[in-house]
Amino acid sequence: MTSFAIIGHRARTDGSFSLNDLPGSGGRMDVLCRCVNAALFLSHDLRRDVDCYLVLCGEPAGQRTVKFAGGLVRSLSPDERSAAALIKKVIDVPCGSEFREAAPGVFIRKGGLERLLTEHRFAVLDEKGSDVQNAPELPDAFLLSDHLNFTDEEEALLHDCPRYSVGPKCLHADHAIIVLHNELDRRSC
Amino acid sequence: MTSFAIIGHRARTDGSFSLNDLPGSGGRMDVLCRCVNAALFLSHDLRRDVDCYLVLCGEPAGQRTVKFAGGLVRSLSPDERSAAALIKKVIDVPCGSEFREAAPGVFIRKGGLERLLTEHRFAVLDEKGSDVQNAPELPDAFLLSDHLNFTDEEEALLHDCPRYSVGPKCLHADHAIIVLHNELDRRSC
Repeated sequence: MTSFAIIGHRARTDGSFSLNDLPGSGGRMDVLCRCVNAALFLSHDLRRDVDCYLVLCGEPAGQRTVKFAGGLVRSLSPDERSAAALIKKVIDVPCGSEFREAAPGVFIRKGGLERLLTEHRFAVLDEKGSDVQNAPELPDAFLLSDHLNFTDEEEALLHDCPRYSVGPKCLHADHAIIVLHNELDRRSC
Repeated sequence: MTSFAIIGHRARTDGSFSLNDLPGSGGRMDVLCRCVNAALFLSHDLRRDVDCYLVLCGEPAGQRTVKFAGGLVRSLSPDERSAAALIKKVIDVPCGSEFREAAPGVFIRKGGLERLLTEHRFAVLDEKGSDVQNAPELPDAFLLSDHLNFTDEEEALLHDCPRYSVGPKCLHADHAIIVLHNELDRRSC
């Protein structure tokens, strides 16, 4: 099982965003939707051994974590709007501090990064990290930021995490997930 | 300069598709929009030395080729809808057999694959090809299909093209572009 978590620093925490304006009204929800696609899709198949966590940190509610379970999710297509429609559907479902399945394979709970860090030993994907291709072994959980850098508060929580880079260029989060999957695929085949 | 070309077998050839339904009304225009993103975007930058050609083969007009020039394009954001809005804007602009710039950095002409093959020496990205990581040298032009296989007619045109795979798993076209970019980035740095 491989896990990805992406921090959406301004990602809307209620369902009032428009599917027609994911970057604006969604607080760059488009970035997170592309990460869901990158984490879960193969050609004509899903990566059923992957979970993708989205940590939504924007207005107006407190932080929420949405989990897409590759082995369970239904009604997910590769386009951004499809993932966004599922997020919009689950985000207003009442939840507590434990994951609640609010659509098939899509779960929601209150809270964000701090809780996730108690559950997975994340490596951070960071252009200043060591090259994944040179790592003798790779972990099974990876954390990324959206279009913004990690905050100082987040960095303080992450100071013990190993850091890996996926190559010489600075990439979008979803592109980094694709490259990392390729490295993992090559190691497991 | 690196070039990517993607065949959109059912991609709509007029502007009547809805930005709210790129997969359906656009004839899987979402696939092509993700390929534009994969070909052109770096984090907070564009790959200005990349051109991305979309070969639209769907209803109702004859084939059209749209070219996104990374060095010239403006008003392009990473979300699918942004690329789709540019396609929708240029697709109904009257054009002939030569490229016409119908929006900044976005060009359109009549015709499809056959013409493109006279202009670039394409390699085909294909899961049955040889591994890009083992290639002593890589070409500078790559051709991919959308969610459908190449037709028999297309395969006949492509029988002389070298074929490369980007790894052990069968990937979406945009994901294959990302992995290939990573290989090219690593070789050029």
